[in-house]
Amino acid sequence: MSLVESGTFELDARECPAPGPSEVLVEMSDVGICGSDIHWYEHGRMGDRAVEEPLVLGHESAGTVVEVGADVDGHAVGDRIAIEPGVPCGECEYCCRGTYNLCRDVEFMATPGTDGAFREYVAWPAEYAYGLPDAVSTREGALCEPISVGVHAVRRADVGIGDSVLVMGAGPIGLLAADVARAAGAADVAVVDVVDSKLDRAVDRGADLAIDGREADVAAAVREAFGTGVDAAIEATGAPPAIESVLDVTRPDGTVVLVGLAPDTEVPVDTFELVRRQVDVRGSYRFANTYPTAISLIAGGDVDAAEIIDFDLPLDRVSDAFERAAEPVVVKGMISMD
Amino acid sequence: MSLVESGTFELDARECPAPGPSEVLVEMSDVGICGSDIHWYEHGRMGDRAVEEPLVLGHESAGTVVEVGADVDGHAVGDRIAIEPGVPCGECEYCCRGTYNLCRDVEFMATPGTDGAFREYVAWPAEYAYGLPDAVSTREGALCEPISVGVHAVRRADVGIGDSVLVMGAGPIGLLAADVARAAGAADVAVVDVVDSKLDRAVDRGADLAIDGREADVAAAVREAFGTGVDAAIEATGAPPAIESVLDVTRPDGTVVLVGLAPDTEVPVDTFELVRRQVDVRGSYRFANTYPTAISLIAGGDVDAAEIIDFDLPLDRVSDAFERAAEPVVVKGMISMD
Amino acid sequence: MSLVESGTFELDARECPAPGPSEVLVEMSDVGICGSDIHWYEHGRMGDRAVEEPLVLGHESAGTVVEVGADVDGHAVGDRIAIEPGVPCGECEYCCRGTYNLCRDVEFMATPGTDGAFREYVAWPAEYAYGLPDAVSTREGALCEPISVGVHAVRRADVGIGDSVLVMGAGPIGLLAADVARAAGAADVAVVDVVDSKLDRAVDRGADLAIDGREADVAAAVREAFGTGVDAAIEATGAPPAIESVLDVTRPDGTVVLVGLAPDTEVPVDTFELVRRQVDVRGSYRFANTYPTAISLIAGGDVDAAEIIDFDLPLDRVSDAFERAAEPVVVKGMISMD
Amino acid sequence: MSLVESGTFELDARECPAPGPSEVLVEMSDVGICGSDIHWYEHGRMGDRAVEEPLVLGHESAGTVVEVGADVDGHAVGDRIAIEPGVPCGECEYCCRGTYNLCRDVEFMATPGTDGAFREYVAWPAEYAYGLPDAVSTREGALCEPISVGVHAVRRADVGIGDSVLVMGAGPIGLLAADVARAAGAADVAVVDVVDSKLDRAVDRGADLAIDGREADVAAAVREAFGTGVDAAIEATGAPPAIESVLDVTRPDGTVVLVGLAPDTEVPVDTFELVRRQVDVRGSYRFANTYPTAISLIAGGDVDAAEIIDFDLPLDRVSDAFERAAEPVVVKGMISMD
Repeated sequence: MSLVESGTFELDARECPAPGPSEVLVEMSDVGICGSDIHWYEHGRMGDRAVEEPLVLGHESAGTVVEVGADVDGHAVGDRIAIEPGVPCGECEYCCRGTYNLCRDVEFMATPGTDGAFREYVAWPAEYAYGLPDAVSTREGALCEPISVGVHAVRRADVGIGDSVLVMGAGPIGLLAADVARAAGAADVAVVDVVDSKLDRAVDRGADLAIDGREADVAAAVREAFGTGVDAAIEATGAPPAIESVLDVTRPDGTVVLVGLAPDTEVPVDTFELVRRQVDVRGSYRFANTYPTAISLIAGGDVDAAEIIDFDLPLDRVSDAFERAAEPVVVKGMISMD
Repeated sequence: MSLVESGTFELDARECPAPGPSEVLVEMSDVGICGSDIHWYEHGRMGDRAVEEPLVLGHESAGTVVEVGADVDGHAVGDRIAIEPGVPCGECEYCCRGTYNLCRDVEFMATPGTDGAFREYVAWPAEYAYGLPDAVSTREGALCEPISVGVHAVRRADVGIGDSVLVMGAGPIGLLAADVARAAGAADVAVVDVVDSKLDRAVDRGADLAIDGREADVAAAVREAFGTGVDAAIEATGAPPAIESVLDVTRPDGTVVLVGLAPDTEVPVDTFELVRRQVDVRGSYRFANTYPTAISLIAGGDVDAAEIIDFDLPLDRVSDAFERAAEPVVVKGMISMD
Repeated sequence: MSLVESGTFELDARECPAPGPSEVLVEMSDVGICGSDIHWYEHGRMGDRAVEEPLVLGHESAGTVVEVGADVDGHAVGDRIAIEPGVPCGECEYCCRGTYNLCRDVEFMATPGTDGAFREYVAWPAEYAYGLPDAVSTREGALCEPISVGVHAVRRADVGIGDSVLVMGAGPIGLLAADVARAAGAADVAVVDVVDSKLDRAVDRGADLAIDGREADVAAAVREAFGTGVDAAIEATGAPPAIESVLDVTRPDGTVVLVGLAPDTEVPVDTFELVRRQVDVRGSYRFANTYPTAISLIAGGDVDAAEIIDFDLPLDRVSDAFERAAEPVVVKGMISMD
Repeated sequence: MSLVESGTFELDARECPAPGPSEVLVEMSDVGICGSDIHWYEHGRMGDRAVEEPLVLGHESAGTVVEVGADVDGHAVGDRIAIEPGVPCGECEYCCRGTYNLCRDVEFMATPGTDGAFREYVAWPAEYAYGLPDAVSTREGALCEPISVGVHAVRRADVGIGDSVLVMGAGPIGLLAADVARAAGAADVAVVDVVDSKLDRAVDRGADLAIDGREADVAAAVREAFGTGVDAAIEATGAPPAIESVLDVTRPDGTVVLVGLAPDTEVPVDTFELVRRQVDVRGSYRFANTYPTAISLIAGGDVDAAEIIDFDLPLDRVSDAFERAAEPVVVKGMISMD
């Protein structure tokens, strides 16, 4: 199911790929719809990259191994696995340093040149396929991808036991990052959003404080609850006003992690305050070395992955699914292959 | 109630102290008996320091504020508080760097020159007294001290989400450190001990694996469960064979934190293995900047402080209490002042 | 010599202070004029703080001990010392964590309520007075203060051996930070300024590349020289265009440290780029735990402190000195007490 | 020139290898003789690995590119390059985390199964071949390998500006690590050895203090010079008495890095002291992400690589070279291919 231009999917008769010697062939079961998929669908482009050839979208995926390459150890036919959607080069300075999320030669699903997961079969390097334990369904396993974004952000934020953490945004990344922060020891987690149902959901999942971003002043609300500010804040909306306000919620020496993408815009920043309060502002891009952690967070019950899913639709209703996933109240829509 | 020589407590008529301008006067409620108290009681000395003047023991304590000094903000009569037992100088290089546990001019309760908490009233600097929320009793609050030892050890171990952690010893420090490790995100916690009831207790508190240290080979058991080894290990016994074996249980690039004290002995170490597997072995001494975290861990239910307590006895039965606390099956005995 | 209102110094007959028991009395020798002194002189205020009582300016100072308090160890009459101008409370959470530069109860020289160093005698806590070795003059020792700002910034930037570093601004902080970065192992140091003589000076002091900020595009010049960008950048101007451009000069996973103060303004920031390149932007405020390092950098020849000084004038010509220090080509003016 | 059994080299007529598509073919110029080469030569085995097939020794090497594989970018015929001798798998958890020195599938020169560099031509993955600038000869470039061991150790030691550092051993690793520590900002470097000429050499290269390890008490000498101890210590001998003593030379919260290999022995360790002084003891194995840094340290004059070389001999005198390199006064012997 390829995106051929903005707004148009087309069912193409792609042949089932043959796995290379170090690959597994995966029959896909569940694939999440990410905000970036919606962005490609709506605009046909992202920043300076455009869809010129038909592109299969989807990069939050899990399925079952149906064939293994000759050199593959550790995977067998029938294994249920989650797919890490980016395969880095393994040789550049970023790969060698352990920051392979910054590899410039990464092949990342559902970006021009690398097909994604909204299709029946995917051949993928076995090293980037992770076996799921019995306690984790493929439907949950597909969400290792957004959980990984949360894990990476929480690591970048250096969240530790007893910390207070604010998460800006109760979409999939925000809700999952809030869970991960709690798993990392955060004692108090505040979540900010502008949609009532999302705030309710954050509270139901365990947020200690829900702040309505439509109300006057997030920073004031934070200071009322947390004194000089939170230890760490994670921005997961990409909305300029949210970014502006998140820079003002941490205590001196606190950390702000930016995850949400705000392309083609600039945010006015009071750098005097960043210096005076000695704030760390850290970009957090995708993830690296997170999949085993994401799986163990689901398996251990720290992250309720299934709860963030609003609906599942079959692949032949992908356009409906995208329309629905774009609604503000929806957190996560899934394509189910069965 | 002072220790006058090894094995002999004497009730002395100490006057109720008057708090200085920056102190609070605390009516003690609950004081834990620590292994080091027992050591002083049994030997009358620790390393090169001896009890020459009558010394009040006890440094795990909580009580109620009955008077506040003139310059004290943030505490009021009636507040229930936990006492951090070490008051550092605030000016030396270690204090200035945030490692005040290493201050050489620290005044630490129940060491020669600084009376401890087995008495009715203690005057203490208000900055080292921490208010307890309603959810935390003074009986639990007294245990902020050993929890702090665990928090410091877990921080030194850099435990993160998804990590596997082995704790050597299911005494108070070991059990509490295991809880703290879980709170810091550890996915799998193994506990080693040589007493059946302690191993049972570790499992009841949530350990994923209990290893009987009397059985042949801890490292082999670890590798069977965790492949190349655990991410981090915490040694909380001070027993030389345990120290020797803990150095062999981590994966390459893993971390071993030593908390247990093994005075007057040497442990044979295979440093070739430390180099080849690039292990970090880190001493962890007392604690710094841990009390608010310890309180929040109790309040949030991450650490079940009360469960580690085997008995409470009144102050006039302190000798009985010490005898009983020294039994191998006992994890924690308390003196209750009421 | 007090500032009584903006633009007006007045010689006041302050008595020689008596040192407290933990203080030393210092006969001042050399005091640098900092940009913030000039700001107070010109505006009579800084942000929300105003000069309401006569205020002695100057916080970059050194002199000779002429009396020691009763409890002082480690200082003797006749010792030449540098004064660390901020005395933190020693008890708040920031002090206890080692980030005493963020103490909100710090008494910092030459801010309303705490007189500075443009006077004959200063009584100062002995713990914040540092003996100078023979190799370091008081004239150089006074510059431990701006060197400390550089040390703190370079530490915040995590500069390591072989790194490339860009320093924005060739004023005192920029030139000194460039030296400190080299001492910390930087292999390549680029300095940006808009004054020819300052760029020349940066090169004379060892900069590998001098970039004229008046020319088109700093980021382009950096990429031409350093490929994807420098490992770390230090912003030492506080000028909004410089801040904007410094955020664009680091490689992916690079670090930008903000030191220069830009009060009452906002800088437009492309946060998309911060996320995509996973940049760390870190505020750096004053300094903590830097004086011994600053002294050793001067003594070891790593930092040529004397070279940044453009002129010395006596205390009775303080107004002339301030006027001259405010000229763009001047890097550092000093008041000499002799 | 292969080692066929302990003590016996044999000239074998190996064909010139053909470079694979991502390899370069290198005509070797200079190869250092490492202690581990001598160990293989003398014992025919190392720990549990034995020489069963003829093995070419040598892993400190540099030469000139004479052919490039079809897919190679960034190298051309005629380039002078240094070879990083270990090629990791690029896919295991250690590779993905940036600690590829711990990859268990690494192919490391001059270990059974992977021939080393004492031969005319080597085909090697281009990613692990590093171009040398004009300022660096191949004779120096070959020493990027032991310099890398020093860089990794200094990074593991977290040496920063102003630190005091003790290096145990004035062999190649010790002397080079001392240089690297200075380049990383160490203000004071002490070197310990038991050979007069090596101590002299350490001083000539810039050590601030040379301690004769044959004299009574290294720790006492350190404390006399550095008060409570050095900030960091690097053990580069592998001799058990040196390891034992290095654990006692750091200040509280100091760091000891173990580099020297002490196979088949155990060192008695006073772990009570490690806890009480909260020492970090860190193994440091080989290196990762060091070659560009090593080259820049030579090019910038921070490390005088050539000075550590005692002699160069041609390949046909390899046995003589090994005998001579094993003498205690020799720091580094080289095989020169010309």
